[in-house]
Amino acid sequence: VETPDHHRAAADCSPEELALVFRAWRERIVDLRRDIRIRYVLLFKNHGREAGASLYHPHSQLIATPIIPTVVVQELNVAREHWGHKERCVFCDFIQQERSLGDRVALETDRFVFVEPYASSFPFETWIFPKTHSHDFALASDANLLELGRVMRDFLRRIRTLLSDPPYNLILHTAPSPHPRPGQPQYWTTIEYDFHWHIEFVPRITRIAGFEWGSGYAINPTPPEEAARFLREVTLEGS
Amino acid sequence: VETPDHHRAAADCSPEELALVFRAWRERIVDLRRDIRIRYVLLFKNHGREAGASLYHPHSQLIATPIIPTVVVQELNVAREHWGHKERCVFCDFIQQERSLGDRVALETDRFVFVEPYASSFPFETWIFPKTHSHDFALASDANLLELGRVMRDFLRRIRTLLSDPPYNLILHTAPSPHPRPGQPQYWTTIEYDFHWHIEFVPRITRIAGFEWGSGYAINPTPPEEAARFLREVTLEGS
Repeated sequence: VETPDHHRAAADCSPEELALVFRAWRERIVDLRRDIRIRYVLLFKNHGREAGASLYHPHSQLIATPIIPTVVVQELNVAREHWGHKERCVFCDFIQQERSLGDRVALETDRFVFVEPYASSFPFETWIFPKTHSHDFALASDANLLELGRVMRDFLRRIRTLLSDPPYNLILHTAPSPHPRPGQPQYWTTIEYDFHWHIEFVPRITRIAGFEWGSGYAINPTPPEEAARFLREVTLEGS
Repeated sequence: VETPDHHRAAADCSPEELALVFRAWRERIVDLRRDIRIRYVLLFKNHGREAGASLYHPHSQLIATPIIPTVVVQELNVAREHWGHKERCVFCDFIQQERSLGDRVALETDRFVFVEPYASSFPFETWIFPKTHSHDFALASDANLLELGRVMRDFLRRIRTLLSDPPYNLILHTAPSPHPRPGQPQYWTTIEYDFHWHIEFVPRITRIAGFEWGSGYAINPTPPEEAARFLREVTLEGS
């Protein structure tokens, strides 16, 4: 539960309050990893009925699983493969390229960067990265989480203004539990170097329909460069 | 456009009218395959706004692509792999097993069987197979399509009664264009034997939320055996 106030959405919380939410995420991950049966802790937030929120009261959710989920494994494998070729973090390379191009960067502070990915599957899909390499959200400092609270609040207010308080999903992508696996004691040997925690944000303003289910492809009517420009240029009331 | 009547949903069409729709699907597939740039013709139907239908008037859609979509390739690969091991069609094996078990069979006629798959991702997800092996919907006879119209009408009326006219997606899974590919003249060499066309039906009564996006896993509160029993036992008004 993110706030005692039933009607105060994340965008209305102070940076300090959001930082407390992120600290609770971190504490829960650290605590659940003490259970060696658990391989992954998936943290996410659904806002609005169309995004699957069954409770109105602002809240985050976690589901801890005894296996690493398919989507996470795919991402970890790609990161490890890139490391094998380049000995560099694929996300650090991505951040550097997007910052040098600039037109898909929605927001940037000293510590964080918000990017609309090149092949966005959804309008205003946004990936949020710490600029300093770190594979594990559980290692984020209080100062980093306070800064994340500040910039996330700014971002969520921009989204709310631009898209009229859309439903959204927000998902943390971080490293799996570091416990060795039987027979594979060092499976994710390079994860500290090759993976980079981040948050993926998807406003639910388009719908998954027959074509998307049947093909696995996404239809996105909004180029990421336009979404990034809208996010940079929007004027917030009272700011 | 499936009917001149703006308000007549597929469930209200006669078997003959639905058969005409399926014949139009077949004609369009056959015609589009004359264009050798086209590798796959994806036929689908979205019913209801929540299922992505942007037009209310009853209609089917097709999108023809110059590549075989990811989801289709995955299915084709699994079918070919099973053939490699067993020299049998994986779908024929599936149909035989489900018919002998019986508890996940929702409907069955001489020519078609409707199954709630063992690992259904969604409540009342239904796979519809011709019982006689055939890899390609384009080869379906008029008699088969008339029978499909009859049983599909019955099925859609059961779904409408059980789930209060839910939004749904209905997707045809069939063979890709048979044109040889440069350098791979015989890529899908066994497809005539290993693949089996079918229709996948998904009512959209649960929502994809943060956990599903972040993990790739589905949360389905309805066991397929219960869904099949409800579909078998529902009493239709006026029947």
